Amino acid sequence: MPPALSFALAQADGAARAGRLATPHGSVDTPAFMPVATYGAVRGVTPDELAAAGAQILLANAYHLHERPGEDVVARCGGLHGFTSWRGPWLTDSGGYQVTSLAGSARVDEDGVTFASPVDGTRRQLTPESAVAIQEALGSDLAMVLDECVPATGEAGAARGRAAMERTLRWAERARRARRRSDQWLFGIVQGGADAALRRASARATGELGFDGYAHGGLGLGEDAAARRDLLAVAHEELPAAAPRYLMGLGRPSDLVDAIAAGVDLFDCVLPTRHARHGVLFTRDGLLRLRNARYRDDALPPEPGCDCPTCARFSRAYLRHLLRAGESLAGRLASLHNLRFYLRLMAESRAAIRDHRFDAYRAEVALRSGAELS
Amino acid sequence: MPPALSFALAQADGAARAGRLATPHGSVDTPAFMPVATYGAVRGVTPDELAAAGAQILLANAYHLHERPGEDVVARCGGLHGFTSWRGPWLTDSGGYQVTSLAGSARVDEDGVTFASPVDGTRRQLTPESAVAIQEALGSDLAMVLDECVPATGEAGAARGRAAMERTLRWAERARRARRRSDQWLFGIVQGGADAALRRASARATGELGFDGYAHGGLGLGEDAAARRDLLAVAHEELPAAAPRYLMGLGRPSDLVDAIAAGVDLFDCVLPTRHARHGVLFTRDGLLRLRNARYRDDALPPEPGCDCPTCARFSRAYLRHLLRAGESLAGRLASLHNLRFYLRLMAESRAAIRDHRFDAYRAEVALRSGAELS
Repeated sequence: MPPALSFALAQADGAARAGRLATPHGSVDTPAFMPVATYGAVRGVTPDELAAAGAQILLANAYHLHERPGEDVVARCGGLHGFTSWRGPWLTDSGGYQVTSLAGSARVDEDGVTFASPVDGTRRQLTPESAVAIQEALGSDLAMVLDECVPATGEAGAARGRAAMERTLRWAERARRARRRSDQWLFGIVQGGADAALRRASARATGELGFDGYAHGGLGLGEDAAARRDLLAVAHEELPAAAPRYLMGLGRPSDLVDAIAAGVDLFDCVLPTRHARHGVLFTRDGLLRLRNARYRDDALPPEPGCDCPTCARFSRAYLRHLLRAGESLAGRLASLHNLRFYLRLMAESRAAIRDHRFDAYRAEVALRSGAELS
Repeated sequence: MPPALSFALAQADGAARAGRLATPHGSVDTPAFMPVATYGAVRGVTPDELAAAGAQILLANAYHLHERPGEDVVARCGGLHGFTSWRGPWLTDSGGYQVTSLAGSARVDEDGVTFASPVDGTRRQLTPESAVAIQEALGSDLAMVLDECVPATGEAGAARGRAAMERTLRWAERARRARRRSDQWLFGIVQGGADAALRRASARATGELGFDGYAHGGLGLGEDAAARRDLLAVAHEELPAAAPRYLMGLGRPSDLVDAIAAGVDLFDCVLPTRHARHGVLFTRDGLLRLRNARYRDDALPPEPGCDCPTCARFSRAYLRHLLRAGESLAGRLASLHNLRFYLRLMAESRAAIRDHRFDAYRAEVALRSGAELS
């Protein structure tokens, strides 16, 4: 019987690489962007629309689904694939980042993370073992170990960063031992903040433990772009090259092409949908802010030439009006466009790697993506 | 040149009637339900989805579009059809009902309605003439005169109801004189509250003024179902039978089949989309309340056998989860189902009239639609 999951590298262009991740629920061409479906749904967008936009894999948050509706409900309804009707691959994050770094009342000790439920206030604990059990019940194709994340450039200093990195390693080992399913891949997570030596040590030790894939955690929390490239590079020197690499939670288009250049394969970020809700659209020539009065009677589509259903049908003037009138259709249509922009960025990156012109493509994206549309 | 607009009655079954309204933007089979797109969009649903659900005509609110984005913007972007990309027929309400009966600070005198803008607080006036001008600029296919609406069973008594009815007639005459476009039909509005004699007088005088169609205003504000049937019937005795009849703002499925039995052709109501946002789904066997715990892991579609895209793909358990998690996809998917339910109710009504079995169909709907799904 062939393995349920596999990852094959097909092309390289410098450190950038294109490949294919095969799962029991379909394949993913890498580099790949995973739309964020925290609760099992991308804001206002259906699975059919995501597939049409080019999505091949979605990301959900195991902890949030544990709180609501509960992994037992999801499991009884056919796992994430049956419950949500997105039948392609799913990656679940453990949710450790959300509960440790965002909930003010969380307490982290060697056992795990203890905190008050944001839903009903009751005491909850997430451990390396329960994080695996929840994700196995959800039935995602790719699961993440529980990690401890401290800000990359925080005040806490090197000692706290080292302690969190080392605890993440001990938790990773416990997570490995807790696994029961063979049809789900488990990713280890590199920590160490913005300290290159710590991240190198974390990557080496995580790689030695041996996981199916590896993630970069705790980035995008203050370090600059050049520092981040170095932090990715030192980790990649230590990690097994044949395994997929995932940069968690980042970012802007320029962040993505930078990380692809460093050899990252998987991405997720809420930016396309969050910007959409605020009326900010990504275009090839920079950001388009729908609230700007100059779009009041602009009959052009958001991005002329874009192949998304929003650009095929609707004008800047109409989207601006919907946004100002508080119509939920605004966020939906803007999200569809922004997700298509991100997914096309990935398809273009894969093509550029295949054609050995990724450096030029990356430079073009970096030049334009930060601009404001004029 | 054939007339831009026409209405042809095809079948009758008792007082119930089936027909076809032709407009420059397509035809509408009657009885017809018009999804409510106050600001030019049905909550979270695209024009393509509405068409697939069987919608043939939408309703927008002229006053709300006057406030935002302004009829000048809509006109420059191709009118309602071009601006919204719903290229089928549009009916616009004047918005008089909203500003006179819902805004606490409105003052009504012979000129029109004066009130503070809900958007920016500035003083605004809506007159019979400006209501026509706004709707002509928006380019709707069917427009409504400005009317004065007082509650059907209010405390104000007969004198106030008579005064409002008579003022509505004077305004209707001014609206007729203000018309400039020949490719838009103008509807007069029958008023008179819950007083059958007043409504009869209003219908007779409005019919004598002569409009392209006639609406029943000020119903659904407290009168019971039997009283409403009588109020519709007396007005229909006075109105020209060949013109389309529109019951404004109603209602539940049983209200709709009751009114069809009395000879109404057009309907609009926010109920399907409002119920959807609150997780209440219409089904053939009664109302399904998604928040009910019994649907926690119910893998059935909302309404087994329903041909809507929501029922084709999603379970009660998933919709319930989305609703509780505050995901906007919940409202969108529930709206699609509820609108399909209403639009199918109209298609079934037309078929029942054609087959001379409308009384039986109506009885079945009345029996089931008020129930709670068990």
